[in-house]
Amino acid sequence: MSFATTRRVVIEDVTPRVDDGRFPAKRIVGDVVTVEADVFADGHDAVAADVRYQRRGETAWRRVPMEPVVNDRWRGEFTVTDIGRFSFTVEGWVDHFATWRLGLAKKRDADVVEESDLEIGAGLIEDAAERAKNDTRAELLSATAALLGDRRRPIEIRVEAALAPEVADAMRLFPDRSRSTVHDPIYEIWVDRERARFSAWYELFPRSWGDEGEHGTLSDVADRLDYVAEMGFDVLYLPPIHPIGRTNRKGPNNSLEAGPDDPGVPWAIGGPEGGHTAIHPQLGTIEDFRKLRDRAAELGLEIALDVAFQCSPDHPWVTEHPEWFAHRPDGTIQYAENPPKRYEDIYPLDFETSDPEGLWEALRGVFEFWIAEGVKIFRVDNPHTKAFPFWEWVIGELKRQEPDLIFLSEAFTRPKVMYRLAKLGFTQSYTYFAWRNTAWELREYLTELTQGEPAEFFRPNFWPNTPDILTEYLQTGSRGAFVTRLVLAATLSSNYGIYGPAFELMESTPRHPGSEEYLDSEKYQIRHWELDRPDSLAPIIRRINEIRREHPALQRMDRLVFHPTDNEQLLCYSKQHGDDTILVVVNLDPTHTHSGWTSLDLAELGVDPDHQFQVHDLLVDRRYLWQGPHNFVQLDPHLMPAHVFAVRRRVRTEEDFDYYL
Amino acid sequence: MSFATTRRVVIEDVTPRVDDGRFPAKRIVGDVVTVEADVFADGHDAVAADVRYQRRGETAWRRVPMEPVVNDRWRGEFTVTDIGRFSFTVEGWVDHFATWRLGLAKKRDADVVEESDLEIGAGLIEDAAERAKNDTRAELLSATAALLGDRRRPIEIRVEAALAPEVADAMRLFPDRSRSTVHDPIYEIWVDRERARFSAWYELFPRSWGDEGEHGTLSDVADRLDYVAEMGFDVLYLPPIHPIGRTNRKGPNNSLEAGPDDPGVPWAIGGPEGGHTAIHPQLGTIEDFRKLRDRAAELGLEIALDVAFQCSPDHPWVTEHPEWFAHRPDGTIQYAENPPKRYEDIYPLDFETSDPEGLWEALRGVFEFWIAEGVKIFRVDNPHTKAFPFWEWVIGELKRQEPDLIFLSEAFTRPKVMYRLAKLGFTQSYTYFAWRNTAWELREYLTELTQGEPAEFFRPNFWPNTPDILTEYLQTGSRGAFVTRLVLAATLSSNYGIYGPAFELMESTPRHPGSEEYLDSEKYQIRHWELDRPDSLAPIIRRINEIRREHPALQRMDRLVFHPTDNEQLLCYSKQHGDDTILVVVNLDPTHTHSGWTSLDLAELGVDPDHQFQVHDLLVDRRYLWQGPHNFVQLDPHLMPAHVFAVRRRVRTEEDFDYYL
Repeated sequence: MSFATTRRVVIEDVTPRVDDGRFPAKRIVGDVVTVEADVFADGHDAVAADVRYQRRGETAWRRVPMEPVVNDRWRGEFTVTDIGRFSFTVEGWVDHFATWRLGLAKKRDADVVEESDLEIGAGLIEDAAERAKNDTRAELLSATAALLGDRRRPIEIRVEAALAPEVADAMRLFPDRSRSTVHDPIYEIWVDRERARFSAWYELFPRSWGDEGEHGTLSDVADRLDYVAEMGFDVLYLPPIHPIGRTNRKGPNNSLEAGPDDPGVPWAIGGPEGGHTAIHPQLGTIEDFRKLRDRAAELGLEIALDVAFQCSPDHPWVTEHPEWFAHRPDGTIQYAENPPKRYEDIYPLDFETSDPEGLWEALRGVFEFWIAEGVKIFRVDNPHTKAFPFWEWVIGELKRQEPDLIFLSEAFTRPKVMYRLAKLGFTQSYTYFAWRNTAWELREYLTELTQGEPAEFFRPNFWPNTPDILTEYLQTGSRGAFVTRLVLAATLSSNYGIYGPAFELMESTPRHPGSEEYLDSEKYQIRHWELDRPDSLAPIIRRINEIRREHPALQRMDRLVFHPTDNEQLLCYSKQHGDDTILVVVNLDPTHTHSGWTSLDLAELGVDPDHQFQVHDLLVDRRYLWQGPHNFVQLDPHLMPAHVFAVRRRVRTEEDFDYYL
Repeated sequence: MSFATTRRVVIEDVTPRVDDGRFPAKRIVGDVVTVEADVFADGHDAVAADVRYQRRGETAWRRVPMEPVVNDRWRGEFTVTDIGRFSFTVEGWVDHFATWRLGLAKKRDADVVEESDLEIGAGLIEDAAERAKNDTRAELLSATAALLGDRRRPIEIRVEAALAPEVADAMRLFPDRSRSTVHDPIYEIWVDRERARFSAWYELFPRSWGDEGEHGTLSDVADRLDYVAEMGFDVLYLPPIHPIGRTNRKGPNNSLEAGPDDPGVPWAIGGPEGGHTAIHPQLGTIEDFRKLRDRAAELGLEIALDVAFQCSPDHPWVTEHPEWFAHRPDGTIQYAENPPKRYEDIYPLDFETSDPEGLWEALRGVFEFWIAEGVKIFRVDNPHTKAFPFWEWVIGELKRQEPDLIFLSEAFTRPKVMYRLAKLGFTQSYTYFAWRNTAWELREYLTELTQGEPAEFFRPNFWPNTPDILTEYLQTGSRGAFVTRLVLAATLSSNYGIYGPAFELMESTPRHPGSEEYLDSEKYQIRHWELDRPDSLAPIIRRINEIRREHPALQRMDRLVFHPTDNEQLLCYSKQHGDDTILVVVNLDPTHTHSGWTSLDLAELGVDPDHQFQVHDLLVDRRYLWQGPHNFVQLDPHLMPAHVFAVRRRVRTEEDFDYYL
């Protein structure tokens, strides 16, 4: 309630903003950021508005003019040209020149222009000429002002000069902002590199990649990495590669007693050999890690490390920093429990520790160690069981040094918790995708993710399986189920991943009926995978990844549209970017052939309702001619449960040949 | 990104909040304010939360506990017991006792409770006993802690004691909030008196209330005020009663030349006799005003004055404060224009004046003058043509002194502008109601007002007519149209008003076809009204106002629900409060009889689908027995175009008689 201000413009509802501006919205380098706001003033005067923006560290604001859209809503755009943090806000002011110009045009039409009208305009233009004095337009403005006041010249000529578009353009560049309103607060945009939005992850347990009967090593992975690269993945995600605890080590299938040769669970981190910055001796050395990293880079793969902030009872921190753990009255450290269940092989860290400074710095140190080893992608295990403020701080600090870091949040928990982690800084997030099977579920969930508030800050990463999640759909659906889930993950989401080779070899036996755990899971034992099995899904995975790389529409989430069909087992959707349009139809029933009719939104697809268009199935390289919204589709899950079409619009050449784009 | 905090609880999306907390939400004294927020912490610990609130001026916070609703959403309620400004926020913390208690219960069920479990609980309870030391519950807590640690007692007995509900209740009252999170920002609630939500306004031009051929006076109004009171209105709204300018005075029907006896437009304020704090000599003196005010009070009417911040060229400010007006280059004052139209009888005030302090203080002085004369309600003319920051300041300052003031915003302009004025402090607002005629329009608009964001800050005041608005519906629809619009205004909105006697005498001739101006409008000339005309709508207006007073459901807007019908000319809706349920069916076609079937939402009406219920038409005192959602309705606009039903649920008495509530 400021007293006696003459700042008359009001600015409301600036977008994008997340949680009233508490958190940055997220974009990718090169993106055009569209800023909107309600901008208006009292009365009937014209208003004008700019978006003001700057990169972190800049002192001056850059500006772009906003244009009215409808109903007092204004819009302006700027491009984020660098990775890192941007700030923006909106400035608005009463535009006396525009008001005057509009009035003058009406008076001219009614033939009631008076000398004093021109005198007022001359004054406004003269003032602008003064503000423009170091600019080439100063002369135009001065000359126009002089002409307006020159009573020897006919009034019609002076009115036309006053209304000239180039004068309006020059006036817009040198407005009187002395009474402008600058919106407070300022909002932020976090800009990531392209891989934050478009990535294909492959998760593997290195210990299973040795020769049969051996404990695999990082070198074994390096030797066989072309297998992963050839499938077209770009992120190689390794579960924890650190020493594994001995105390209370789990045996095969999560049994409480481990045999002497049982390798233990990689997430029970820490032993006499070290903790989160050490490498498990059976996997190799830091040198082996570096070689793997370099080999991955040669193959176009980035390594993502798993960061699981928890300790086996043998972790060095347990003795060096007992204050980082909660204790029971008898002085023992509190293991993880979910009463009456106990997890005695793992000690959680206590974020209510008496030494939060020390703990937070140590955890940051873990990231910094691996960043120094060239790692830029981290998959964070159960971030929702660590204090939220820690994540905001540590990701903020790390990205300030290395803005191209990527953090994947592995939080399978309640929706608001998952969204909070994304707001705090996680680049990508695991989702509920694994359990969304029906058309209705998928439409609802994807609409929430791509059209709802989360679209500004939550980047989904879809996983049909993980070492913890073998869904009932995959358990019961056989090959068709795997292909269906692969196509859905890779085309609905621009970030996706699989846990292999379990996925491509269609591993589908649960530990027991009703369980989502794998039987003989790699989490507890070494497996040997027959990578060249003839029924492997590797070829179709490779094709899917090729299609994703060739089609920009699949590299983003912003224009996903669902199209109705008359068979609820047939899910139909399109994605678009620029000229690229992908249309997908998936048979969600992994057992039976289904057929039905689409009801396409032709305008969304950009095709002419009166002409045929071509749909080119990129999976099997077959083409169909369709027309109008209603087209027949039939999909046999035992052959191929999905069409992934490129929509090719017909173009007539000068030589009068038609062809399809 | 605070470093090393141990405050683990997150609070998001606190409601009610208006524009991210920039403005207060509005409530009525005695209202229960329901506060909701997302409250959660990392991990699996239980959390607890309080609403903290205080009246302006209090230093301590009061607290009410919140309860979980669903999906991390929490809810708490408090009652606003005074008119004025309240602040509130949410505080949340990890509830270690609740976490421990839940775990203990599970361990008890699994029969795995250990001594150390009880030891942990004893410690938590002991700490709470310390915090409770001045409270009667301290003893219970100390005793429980001691019992838990007493190994001589059987463990089962100690576990049961630890789980006792009264212990949980006492622990909830003395929680450990040392690591709590207090949500920032703090939000505000503006609390008004009841009339802000429930009022019936009657607008009249005093100069038309004298004997025929005479200039009416305030005393004439006082003499005839029982006419207004008997119709059941509670606000008497007078257009400006100040001296009227002579310069460029308008004649009848807005003609540019006024004759010597033409009374002029009351909104052309100011003459040699004074400005906004003077009374037009032809209306009487300040003494006459005081008598009218007192007479109104006797009759249960409050006077609302019109505040129109603009000046006739003869207003004292024009010479005393020329700097408060915009000037043209020739030194003359800029009259209002909408090129090519000119309004030379009115000078707008210039809020970009070089003396904003002086102008703002003078305008505040106008309000203060009339407040000192006992006026508490102001209808503000065209507030959207005065600077927004002025309204926030002046209303804030005035209400700080007199919190029971009511300001009605007369802004017929773009929606965001109207909403902004309400946010800035206007108590009630004119609306688009006058032009919302069809069922679809009314449903859309009322849903926006009562269910959308505006419900928190915008209180509609529905006017079927005003001196500026004679709608085409009223022009063409004859008596049925007037009754329809009356019923809609008075039952859809808890605040409504009419411009009389033009309304009850069904004045319906426009100045010319296509105009919404009245022919021979009182704005420009004195009229004489035949108040006792036999066809007057006064009796039905009186009945409507009686019904509104008897039925709390009609005194608020929060539970308006539309029910479908199979005839789009029949609009059906209900309102509810406590036990009171009103169901309205209106025939929107003023010309033809319509009939159709309702599709009532019986759950909303609180009636049993399997039994008959009574609908009692309060307008004509007829009762019908209905059952189920589908009931037949027929309405003849020439008889009565609406049913206003009290829904009477059947009750069986102990003596086995049925009756209807």
